[in-house]
Amino acid sequence: MTTSATPPELTLPKGVKDFLPIKAAKIEYLKQTLAELFHRWGFRPVLPASLEFLDVLERGLGAGLREKTFRFDDRQSGRLVAFSPDITPQIARIVATRLRGMPLPLRLCYTGQVLRHTEQQTGKDREIFQSGVELIGLESPEADAEMIAMAVESLQALGAGEFTVDVGQVEFSRGVMADLPLSAAQAREVQAAIARKDSSGLQQLLEPLPLNDRSYDEVMALPRLFGGRDVLDRAAAVVSNDRSRRALDSLARILEILEVYGVEEHVTFDLGELRGLDYHTGVTFQGYLAGFGRAVCSGGRYDGLTARYGFPAPATGFTFNLLNLLFALEKDLEEVAGKSTDVLIFQAGADKRTAQRIARALRARGYSAARDIIARGLETSLDYARTMNYRFAMVLADEGDEVGLIRLADGNRRQLTVARVLAEDFRL
Amino acid sequence: MTTSATPPELTLPKGVKDFLPIKAAKIEYLKQTLAELFHRWGFRPVLPASLEFLDVLERGLGAGLREKTFRFDDRQSGRLVAFSPDITPQIARIVATRLRGMPLPLRLCYTGQVLRHTEQQTGKDREIFQSGVELIGLESPEADAEMIAMAVESLQALGAGEFTVDVGQVEFSRGVMADLPLSAAQAREVQAAIARKDSSGLQQLLEPLPLNDRSYDEVMALPRLFGGRDVLDRAAAVVSNDRSRRALDSLARILEILEVYGVEEHVTFDLGELRGLDYHTGVTFQGYLAGFGRAVCSGGRYDGLTARYGFPAPATGFTFNLLNLLFALEKDLEEVAGKSTDVLIFQAGADKRTAQRIARALRARGYSAARDIIARGLETSLDYARTMNYRFAMVLADEGDEVGLIRLADGNRRQLTVARVLAEDFRL
Repeated sequence: MTTSATPPELTLPKGVKDFLPIKAAKIEYLKQTLAELFHRWGFRPVLPASLEFLDVLERGLGAGLREKTFRFDDRQSGRLVAFSPDITPQIARIVATRLRGMPLPLRLCYTGQVLRHTEQQTGKDREIFQSGVELIGLESPEADAEMIAMAVESLQALGAGEFTVDVGQVEFSRGVMADLPLSAAQAREVQAAIARKDSSGLQQLLEPLPLNDRSYDEVMALPRLFGGRDVLDRAAAVVSNDRSRRALDSLARILEILEVYGVEEHVTFDLGELRGLDYHTGVTFQGYLAGFGRAVCSGGRYDGLTARYGFPAPATGFTFNLLNLLFALEKDLEEVAGKSTDVLIFQAGADKRTAQRIARALRARGYSAARDIIARGLETSLDYARTMNYRFAMVLADEGDEVGLIRLADGNRRQLTVARVLAEDFRL
Repeated sequence: MTTSATPPELTLPKGVKDFLPIKAAKIEYLKQTLAELFHRWGFRPVLPASLEFLDVLERGLGAGLREKTFRFDDRQSGRLVAFSPDITPQIARIVATRLRGMPLPLRLCYTGQVLRHTEQQTGKDREIFQSGVELIGLESPEADAEMIAMAVESLQALGAGEFTVDVGQVEFSRGVMADLPLSAAQAREVQAAIARKDSSGLQQLLEPLPLNDRSYDEVMALPRLFGGRDVLDRAAAVVSNDRSRRALDSLARILEILEVYGVEEHVTFDLGELRGLDYHTGVTFQGYLAGFGRAVCSGGRYDGLTARYGFPAPATGFTFNLLNLLFALEKDLEEVAGKSTDVLIFQAGADKRTAQRIARALRARGYSAARDIIARGLETSLDYARTMNYRFAMVLADEGDEVGLIRLADGNRRQLTVARVLAEDFRL
């Protein structure tokens, strides 16, 4: 559908959008395809409340997301309530409260919207559509590998061509950084330089500091430790602290499992990756489609989150950002999700019963059919059908037993009988 | 799944809920089934923004919904923004702005959540799940009939047994009330008595008023004008004003069309019905399941709504309240939506490759399969599978080519080869 400009007095707040039919159908397709895949892996849906008390929600949020939370006074309770900026803490709360009597592991999935404040200048989405899974109760590398394998299979199910899942381990860099003589401010600057992969900036930051050679080499290695599986060997040659070595061992084990899954060709590593959310405690990962800079999915281990709600349990999970997926896959989704309505049925005269019977029969066979119930001439009707992207028009004679079936793409016209169209085996 | 009590410090605000796996799956099923039916009737999805500027949103809201709107200062724009308490005005806005260049009619559908403030005592939901359709650009009774027929077919598709769609016409009672010498307060009292079907209360209100006999008889008839199709004849015998008579004519025409659709057996009338939303202008209707007092769907004509956004067009539509549907159909949905995961695959020993291959093969055939990747004994694993409602457990030998397939409902066990389970034609 083509669209018109919106008058200034009727605009939307920045960072939120209306989605019109074709894009809305594509978002629906993304949700469905992911929900179906999650189901096949044994994950079952939960639907967290859209409002929470702010103090309850904040137990599960780091400082970054707390700042971005939409909050307001609740007229009813007199307390502060909020819309969640992240679904994972909500699921941690549900697991820790209403599901705490269940045997572990729990495999849960969700699809929903979260809201986050953003600065006007950034042009970022304030409404984020997420579909994701949480695997609660397992600390083994197999659980991390299950998440990564599911991310890969999800992207394959969505028809993504070239893509990578970039795996990090927050414990690796935490091991490197742990014993450095840095102030909190210095640590933030160092981390920012590593995240930018800015080796010369990092060097300038480190040189004035009283580091021994080993620590200096370990930190300086971080911005370069990304790429294929050789990263794990390169990292092992550089680091000697136990914490980083354990992190490398876990990654090596996960890679082995991913090879059995047959998805290792999509896996890359980034040991300088520090972008996990505050609650991440181990392996993290992000999915990227070729030619699209923003991550379409992200996730990782968060072993401390359910404990904030009184129920300690290891956990891992990941979520897709559906609008990033939509943007990256827009063209590929054209065929599967851009489907228009199959038939517009047109009958002149006062008696529309035949048109109704045919519409009903077509719908019962799984076709989509609308009746043109506005009084207008045939040509106007056909123009409408073409503009609205219908596949076929059916023209019924006022009386008699004839149906004209017009394929709108090329104008091809066939004459059929009503009985033929109503027959069980009739196909468009 | 069974559930635990929530500690008081982790409760949710009143009027919102978390939905756990079985209920969440049922809600998903309701959305899917309705979306599929709407698609077959030629309706295409739109997804309105979750935030709007309050002044824009309020153009489309009557006083009742304005009061119930969640609003707050937007940190970014400095303006008041709001969450919509009703999706129809949002679609009216979208039609009037971004779709105003499209030829009419437009058939649009949606599924989403709205928020409404409620009083604590009422125990009402503040978060309302809606799936509905809007048919924009047609003023004919055929359009109203299409809405009612779709409501009936939707309820049939959802497996509802006994149900009625109760049809009113706001113009009928407006015609009766139009020329009465009533103050606004008196009019409200009279309408409330009619809505309660309280004939004696109504009589007490009317007697002191200077009404002529004809007006008195017309008003007194309103609380009794409900029931089957004879209501239309009874009403015609009582009213003489043109406005009410035109309303009756439109209802008679709609009933004729519904007879062709073959859905008239589900249709009842209520001409005292005044419950339409502020924007309703003609035929309204509500769907009720036997034994459940709250409406599961409601809708009607709203010819003035898009004009509030600068684009006058006739329109009609209706929406399902998914939580009312869930409550009314809960048991009937058990079979279709209460589906658990098909198989839990258990393999002892370090090498899990066979288990992974089998899981993959089963998923490719459409089954849902999870692997038990926690280290525990077989009996504990089977207990887990039974508690979590899996249908089957598969037990793989540490080495060798044997698979034990256990049906968990009755413990029936078969021995199969791995090759058999991996075969294309293997069925659980």
